[in-house]
Amino acid sequence: MLVLITYDVSTETSEGRRRLRRVAKTCLNYGQRVQKSVFECRVNTMEMKRLKDQLLDIIDLEEDSLRFYRIIEPLEKNREEFGNSKAIDFENTLIV
Amino acid sequence: MLVLITYDVSTETSEGRRRLRRVAKTCLNYGQRVQKSVFECRVNTMEMKRLKDQLLDIIDLEEDSLRFYRIIEPLEKNREEFGNSKAIDFENTLIV
Repeated sequence: MLVLITYDVSTETSEGRRRLRRVAKTCLNYGQRVQKSVFECRVNTMEMKRLKDQLLDIIDLEEDSLRFYRIIEPLEKNREEFGNSKAIDFENTLIV
Repeated sequence: MLVLITYDVSTETSEGRRRLRRVAKTCLNYGQRVQKSVFECRVNTMEMKRLKDQLLDIIDLEEDSLRFYRIIEPLEKNREEFGNSKAIDFENTLIV
């Protein structure tokens, strides 16, 4: 299944930036980063459970928001992209 | 149809923050804001076209990234939420 993961974290603190880096690193094992805190992951049921458990270990449930959405496939017919995602320096734009 | 809109913009500049406010205001005509730059919108084909046109007028294609994803329905079976989205002050967390 194809799952979109969106993560909302305050990057005003070094702890928040660290959690985002760890979330990104974990999601990259299952898919790709398409925006600073948006990830497209292709997983089966077992991988989905594992990914979710790993992410829930990383995030701060009091501070952050984490969401999973099942996307309609095929992706190329159900996703549209605009703008310049390639220009984004994911690490540096977060250090404000 | 149910569409998830994710918007990546640098909020380091007042122009970026302004664009995010305008994107949020536009999306709120069609749905709800669930994270700082993630919106769930329920639209028909005509509304989808109008929403897309409006958003493309707002964003900076050189700087920003805007994505639309069709979500599998029913939403309650295909979305999972963790953490505290309600605690997020969408406006203030952006002004860093």
